[in-house]
Parts: sequence; structure tokens; C-alpha cells
Amino acid sequence: MVGSKKKFDIIIEGGTLLTMVDGEEPMHNVRVIISGGRIEEISARQDSPIPETNEVINAEDAIILPGLINTHGHSAMTIFRGIADDLPLKKWLYDHIFPAEAKYLNPDTVYWASLLACLEMIASGTTTFVDGYFFAGETIRATDKAGMRALVAQGVLDFPAPGVPDPKKNLDVAFEFLEKWINFSDLITPGIFCHSPLTCSAGTLLKAHEISNRFRLPLQIHLSETQEEVTEIKKRTGLRPVFYLDDLGLLNSRLIAAHAIYLNEEEIDLLAKRHVKIAHCPESNMKLGLSIPPVVEMLEKGITVGLGTDGCASNNNLDLFGEMDTTSKLAKIANLDPTLLDARTVLKMATVGGAKVIGLENRVGTIEPGKKADIIIVDTNTPHMTPIYNPYSQLVYSATGGDVRDVIINGEIVLRERQFTTLDSDDIISEVKSLSRSIGT
Amino acid sequence: MVGSKKKFDIIIEGGTLLTMVDGEEPMHNVRVIISGGRIEEISARQDSPIPETNEVINAEDAIILPGLINTHGHSAMTIFRGIADDLPLKKWLYDHIFPAEAKYLNPDTVYWASLLACLEMIASGTTTFVDGYFFAGETIRATDKAGMRALVAQGVLDFPAPGVPDPKKNLDVAFEFLEKWINFSDLITPGIFCHSPLTCSAGTLLKAHEISNRFRLPLQIHLSETQEEVTEIKKRTGLRPVFYLDDLGLLNSRLIAAHAIYLNEEEIDLLAKRHVKIAHCPESNMKLGLSIPPVVEMLEKGITVGLGTDGCASNNNLDLFGEMDTTSKLAKIANLDPTLLDARTVLKMATVGGAKVIGLENRVGTIEPGKKADIIIVDTNTPHMTPIYNPYSQLVYSATGGDVRDVIINGEIVLRERQFTTLDSDDIISEVKSLSRSIGT
Repeated sequence: MVGSKKKFDIIIEGGTLLTMVDGEEPMHNVRVIISGGRIEEISARQDSPIPETNEVINAEDAIILPGLINTHGHSAMTIFRGIADDLPLKKWLYDHIFPAEAKYLNPDTVYWASLLACLEMIASGTTTFVDGYFFAGETIRATDKAGMRALVAQGVLDFPAPGVPDPKKNLDVAFEFLEKWINFSDLITPGIFCHSPLTCSAGTLLKAHEISNRFRLPLQIHLSETQEEVTEIKKRTGLRPVFYLDDLGLLNSRLIAAHAIYLNEEEIDLLAKRHVKIAHCPESNMKLGLSIPPVVEMLEKGITVGLGTDGCASNNNLDLFGEMDTTSKLAKIANLDPTLLDARTVLKMATVGGAKVIGLENRVGTIEPGKKADIIIVDTNTPHMTPIYNPYSQLVYSATGGDVRDVIINGEIVLRERQFTTLDSDDIISEVKSLSRSIGT
Repeated sequence: MVGSKKKFDIIIEGGTLLTMVDGEEPMHNVRVIISGGRIEEISARQDSPIPETNEVINAEDAIILPGLINTHGHSAMTIFRGIADDLPLKKWLYDHIFPAEAKYLNPDTVYWASLLACLEMIASGTTTFVDGYFFAGETIRATDKAGMRALVAQGVLDFPAPGVPDPKKNLDVAFEFLEKWINFSDLITPGIFCHSPLTCSAGTLLKAHEISNRFRLPLQIHLSETQEEVTEIKKRTGLRPVFYLDDLGLLNSRLIAAHAIYLNEEEIDLLAKRHVKIAHCPESNMKLGLSIPPVVEMLEKGITVGLGTDGCASNNNLDLFGEMDTTSKLAKIANLDPTLLDARTVLKMATVGGAKVIGLENRVGTIEPGKKADIIIVDTNTPHMTPIYNPYSQLVYSATGGDVRDVIINGEIVLRERQFTTLDSDDIISEVKSLSRSIGT
């Protein structure tokens, strides 16, 4: 915590500000004042002395923007980064990932691997993330230590899972998880993550939905990620996955559907009508050789689409700058139209779009007085960021996560000049390396 | 130059070595000895004292691999980075890029923008690049100052061009360029770059081919980059572009064809038969909304395919790590097959594949005793590079250019612990920023 003797906590001086508020253009040479965890004031930089503050961040030669929001991932999968690549999806999942999870996931690995994910996300400008995995309480502990904002969900499926050997108890475990963590932190929201319509029965889906509703919490699911899922759900129920979930009453504005690849027009219309939120994961989709989701069509129909990295076993990093770049380029090549998903649009998807996906748009996603101070500062004084004609283009098409210099979450500096302030990176890296030595292909 | 009193110039100690030699597996904890610009010896790290040497590079917690080779670009276009994005291709080219080139390109802008490109390429692990643009002598001066290896070509087209106001003299200018620079440096080869079959007449192409042949130098061309090119060439000549160039006698093992997107099966067969080299530029292709080239088919037919970034007006960076990642993922999604272009294969394309594209495979592209010491060292002691199960995966799917820590070209260290040794980055960045102020959208 920053001491509170001074009038303000942090003042950012200079630099180009992208508020990401609709209709607002880039502001140059600004002053952003942060106090009590919130954005207090935005103005042109003054010649007058800097007001009394605990900390001044010089942002000349830098771009200031809202922290990025990762709407889909499995943080602790950092422990499996690169363990099984370039394989057919079924072989990858059933011969490598599921067995590795069963063998190596435990509270300890999840805790350390989640800390590693927090390091990586902070270092690449992510301030809020959505997670769904096992031993989710350990991911919450790691997130809290890191000082990050997150929706962390307990994974649910109808098979024995890490930490949940008896699938009959999967929703009891999830319920206890929600009860335990619901009031733990202002920054962290617990939730439920149903693995997929294929791996969760109708009963499981209904109960997860009912519990999430009772807590008024978002519910996550992998939806229409593979052609096999569509075929199988149709065989089982006579309906395509989106209609099947609608039939169960699951489609609402608190449902976060990840991937959403194999959709027909009626399904897109229905997702729009029900205000379902989408987590688009382009790099994971590509790496698994899946198809290209209809992102442009979804946006045209008013669906809120955020960006997600997915887990590190299918990406293999948590850098949302890469996802922004890929989102734009993939839409352009899929539709043979270079005007689609321009740089500003994808930056919106990664910031305010992500905030809407989680229902946090009143708190984060833009830089406006009164909003929580989740802000990142990107260094532009490097060869690949020179010159700058268009800051949106620069961030999306030239930058990588490694260009993020400072990160503020909830008014606290968690990365200063690329040094972590809340986490001991040497310790975490060394611990995960050590854990990984017993894991291998 | 490194002083030569000591027995060796550089010894790299520790780390995982990827030689990129066919059939050789990663070697751990190695010693690589460099002397006289060449790789002298590769061995397991010894407990015995390090031999007498001018410099020791500690590569523990790092991956050692051949320097990357960028087979297609227009270095000085860094000056136009982000000047015109998300536009229809014709509008982009004719309303923005061509006018900007006509107005702002001169020896001074090309020199400084080429230096900026060298900074960016060195900082992201590229040791050799292929260039085609205008005022190419200035790019050679910059490349020489940077200490990089390159094939730098003078651009040729049948329209007034920067530095070549009279297109009738385009090949005289190119010829003089070759004569002037052919013996300038061991590291830099001059060449000719014909802009495209659309913008160069048959006469121009024939003459460029004849001159290049006389000097036994590679000839570059943009080939089958747009559907319009295919349609128009067919209209003009009755032939698709590849057959048209074959008809002119241009197809041979020294022709470097960039993009090569719109190809039918007969064209792929013909390119293979004639041993034409391909520069695959996935990010530029995607950003311009072009189609997906048949890379997998080309490789299957034995065609040598290297990777290229293209210029910074259509990418917008020169980071080959991004191109490797995109190459793999794009092939996977295009063919709905995650096993295609695995990490090792694309790393080969970016190293030894690139060397073959330029005809330098006997000098660079792998780490073997006797070869020129073009070597990069990638830091793995970071969150996103932890843990490591497969170093190829880690480089292709997790790393970015910013992870490159040290770069050696021709036995000289040009980047040491991310500090440039041959170039003054502050000076170059400041100069390009200053030049860019008069340029704008």
C-alpha cells in the first residue's frame, strides 16, 4: 500500500493518452492523477509545479492506456507451456494434457504456476484476467499476492478432475469455492467454469447455471470450439450447441463463451439476442488448427467480444499484444479485406470490450475520472516503436508485451520500469523450473 | 574489430545449443568457440579453465541458435511505419505509400531509416537480411555501419521512382549500383529488385535478369502477390505470372520470389522444377487482406521457402520471431491441421532455409565448425520462457524478438546484453523521429 500522507498517490506526467472512451482522440502530453485507487483527474500537462504526490511516473516517450483484459485462460497451465505442441487436437488433449493434469496438478503446482502466469501477464500489460481451472483457490491466492484483478473460476466437468476425484461432487466443490471466496477481495471474483457442453451433462450445466445465478456471478464455458462438439451435441440433442444451451436456459448476459468458432447465422443471432459474451482466442484456435470464428459478424450484430490467450499449453504465451495483432490480421485474411478490425477496434476489444465481457465496464476498461486506476504505460523509445504516426497502430501492429514499462492495478504500481513490485520473479521462476523437472514429455 | 592477441575471440559458455543441422538434437551446457569470424569448435562445456579468449559470453539460462535471416523487406520503410493502416490495398499503395515515397524518400531518409531497421533487426535476432528499395547505396552504408550481413538490391520499375526520375534509366542506375558495391564488403551483396511483373515490362525483366546473371547475383521480384496481378498478367500475356516469367527465362535458382500467394498446382510444380526461392511474408499478407499462400505444398514439393517481414508499412515490425509464430499458426488454420509446420520446421525456414534462399547456405544458417559466426543468444530466464520442455516450441510460440540478448555477426558482437555495440540507438531514434515530423497522414 502506498502511504497516504501526500495529497495524491500517483501522477503520470507526459506521454500520449488513449482513454479508449468512445469518440475521444489521443491526448498528447497529459497529466493523469491517481488517488485512492481511482483516476482522479486527467488534464493537459501543466507548466506549474507537480502537485504533492507519493509518486511521479514520467511517461514522455510512452503511451498510456487502460490495462488489458484477458477474457479467457487457464493460468496454471503455464506449468505445461510447450509440453505438447504440433499434435492432432485429440491426441494433444487425451494423450498429453489430461494425463499431465491428472498426474501433476496439485495445490502447490497450481499456486506456483498461477504466480508465474501473474508475472507474465503483468509484464505484458494485462491487469485483469478471466480464469477457469482446478484448485482455483490457489489461483486466487496467487492473484491476490500479485495484486491483479480477476474472475477466477473453479472448473467443472463430469469426469474425475484434479482436486475433484468424484465428479458427482463437482458442483459441491464449486459451491463451496464460491462461498469461501465471494467476499475475499474487491479485486477478485470467484466463479464457475463449465468445461464444455460435451463434458458437462445437462444436469451439471443447469446446476452450475443455477448456482451462478444465485450468486449473480458470470458463468464460463468453452462453446463450439470444435466441429466434433457440434456434431456430437447435435447427435445427442438434435440441436446445435448454442440452441442446446438456450434450451437449457443458460444463455444470458452473464455467460462468457470462450472460442465460439463453429457458429451458423442463427446461432450468432441468438447469442446477440441473449447478450452472451464472447472470449475470442485467435492464437489458440490457430495453433490447434481449428477454424476461424465469425468475429466480424458477431461484432456487427452487436455481440460483445473480448480477447483471450487461452492456456499456455495451446498458445504458448499470455501476451495480449500478440492476440490483438493476430485478431486484426486473422479477420483481414479470413475475409480478404484489410479494412476489417482496424487497430483501434481491436484495442477496444482488449480493453473496454474485455471489461464488458466480465461486467466490469463501470469500473475498468477505459481511463476516465472515477474509474479504477488500471493503467499501463508502454515505452515507445525503442527502434521498433519509432516513428509514431498512429498510436493505435503502433500498439497493435508493432508492440509486444515486452514494451510495457509500468503497470498500475487499482491504483497500485505492480510493475515499475519493468521491475515487479508485488512478486519475486526470481523465486517464482526458479520454483516453477524446479517443479517442471519432474514433468516431461 | 576484436583485438587478436588472445587465442580465441569469443567463447560462449553454457546454454542450450540448437545447431539447426539436420538430424542434430539440442545440446545442453555447451561451449562454442569463435575465432577469426568463424565457428571454431563446439563441445560440451568443460570443467577445465576456459581457454584464453577476448570475450566470454555466459549463456546459462539461454538458447544459442543461428542468427535469423529475413528474406524479404524494404528496410527504409521504417520511416513509414504505421503511416497508413487498415486500408484497401490499392488505396494504401497508390494514395499513401507511392506518394509518400515520392515526396519523402531521399538519400538522407533512406540512410537513417535503414539504420533504424538495422537496430530493430539486430535487437530481434536477425543477422542477415534481404532488401529491395531505392537509394540502395544508402542502405548498404547503413548495413555496413551496423555490421550486418545482407543482400541489398536497387529497386527497378517502369515508373518514375525515388532517385530514378527517368524510368528509361532504371537499369542503368541498377547496373552502376552493382558495379559500385560488388566488391565493397564481404558481408554485403548488391542486387537488383524488380518490383513486380505488373510494374516492370518484359524488356525490363529480361535486362534485369541478364545483368544479374552477368554478376552471378540473385534477382528479386514480388510474384503473384495479388489476384489482380494474376488477372492482369493473364490478360496481357495469356499466361499466369509464373509461366510468364518462365517464358522470359527468369526462373532459376537465383530468383527470389517474394509473397508467391496466388499459385496453382502447375505453377508450384514449375517453381520447384526451376529451383526458384520463395520469401514467405505471412504477416504482411494477412495485414493486406491477401490470401494464404500454399506454403505447405511448396515445402512438400521441395521448394526452398524462407521467411520475410516485408516493409514496415505493411507489417509493421521487422521481428522474425513473430513471423515464425504466424507461419506455423497460419498453415495450421489454413489446412485445419495442427501438425503442420511444427516449431522446428519454421525455425529451419528462418535460419538455414533463409540461407538457402540467398545462396549463403555454405556460410551461414547453421552453427557448425567452419561456418561464419552468425549466432544469437535468447534469454530464457523470464516468466514467459519458463519452464522449457522443448526449446524449438519456446522460441517459436513463446518468444518475441525482445528476448534476444546477444547477437554475433561474422564473429563480432553487435548486441551485448541488449546494448548495441556498432550503432548509437539514441541518435538514430532521435534522427528518425525528427525526420518523421514533416511526414504525416
